[in-house]
Amino acid sequence: MTGKQHRIGLIRVLTTDDPDLLNAHGKLIENSIPGLVVISKCIPDQEKGIYSLETHRKAVPKILHMAKEMEKEGLAGVLISCAGDPGLAESKKALKIPVVGAGKALALTALMWGDKVGVLNLTEETPINIKEVLGKTLAAEESVDAENTVELMQPGEMKKVINSCLLLRDRGTEVIALACTGMSTIGASVEIKKHLGLKVIDPVIAEGIAMWSILNYSQ
Amino acid sequence: MTGKQHRIGLIRVLTTDDPDLLNAHGKLIENSIPGLVVISKCIPDQEKGIYSLETHRKAVPKILHMAKEMEKEGLAGVLISCAGDPGLAESKKALKIPVVGAGKALALTALMWGDKVGVLNLTEETPINIKEVLGKTLAAEESVDAENTVELMQPGEMKKVINSCLLLRDRGTEVIALACTGMSTIGASVEIKKHLGLKVIDPVIAEGIAMWSILNYSQ
Repeated sequence: MTGKQHRIGLIRVLTTDDPDLLNAHGKLIENSIPGLVVISKCIPDQEKGIYSLETHRKAVPKILHMAKEMEKEGLAGVLISCAGDPGLAESKKALKIPVVGAGKALALTALMWGDKVGVLNLTEETPINIKEVLGKTLAAEESVDAENTVELMQPGEMKKVINSCLLLRDRGTEVIALACTGMSTIGASVEIKKHLGLKVIDPVIAEGIAMWSILNYSQ
Repeated sequence: MTGKQHRIGLIRVLTTDDPDLLNAHGKLIENSIPGLVVISKCIPDQEKGIYSLETHRKAVPKILHMAKEMEKEGLAGVLISCAGDPGLAESKKALKIPVVGAGKALALTALMWGDKVGVLNLTEETPINIKEVLGKTLAAEESVDAENTVELMQPGEMKKVINSCLLLRDRGTEVIALACTGMSTIGASVEIKKHLGLKVIDPVIAEGIAMWSILNYSQ
């Protein structure tokens, strides 16, 4: 928008050696927000991503290490591309460049877009970081009931996503917040928009816009 | 960013027949965010803007009326360009198109950008709508101690703005939120950036980015 180009790092919390999968979030951001060039890296040894308290905890030191490396490499900012914001507080404390987490960006965008937010989760309940930001604005929660983000990529899962969104709509939701960046990977927001007349927030788009606004307008 | 153009309405809460003053916020948005064309209108009979509970209350029905007219004229969204968000709840309820207030956009942007927010006010204390969103993140408050937004446009006021920001910085502020769109009119954020090493949020830029994200990505 301002013509400036920024090279930023994006941390995938899903271990993969498939370059298309690795770069899926980065491409989504680059295609939506000109001016951002995204270098994606994934943490090691988490082939199923983050889907429990244990896998979250395990990921935090790896994310912090990777964020520090990205700063050393001269990148302008770091995105932690996971709705649970693992390592966000730790990385913000350690780094001088801006660090944005998908979960916080999603929740703040939801507050801006509507007053009744329905959260669609991968497993179980809404991540605490998102719940805290939304407060009373959290109108409804549903889960796709997938084991992890890898399962979400299987055929038939999109139908479960749409069905869960219909339940959210029936419970008074104005805005749907997709509380798992795996839903960005499978392009869920595009499909949901086709089927429902509600606003839908993609967490990867949300973190991209947040980073772009910080890099272009904060100083 | 996506190449789409959106014509939006912007409501000034300061009555003026000076086209440069009327269009100051719209120009700032158009120059910062390509894709938004801004049609500005001002409410009648408030030559000094909104600077007290009484002037706020007086403005609400005028803003609601103007927002409804803008929707009828086919505009894609409405910005209420005042940090107090007068008439925001009423207009959101009455309109089908998105309505964004500068105060809420400012506060949510502040939460995204930093954990210790210093608010710079025109008069007295931080508007309640901003206070509610910031919660514990509100680290410090200062006032320029101007009577109203017209006084803020006088020579010498910028020095007061800078001095107040220095006080905010001394009190641990990471991000300065300018809680009066009159500070956008005088270009305060540019001056503050020259003098201080802190992030500064301009409320007009914040409302522009928020509207742009809703129009381009919500559906």
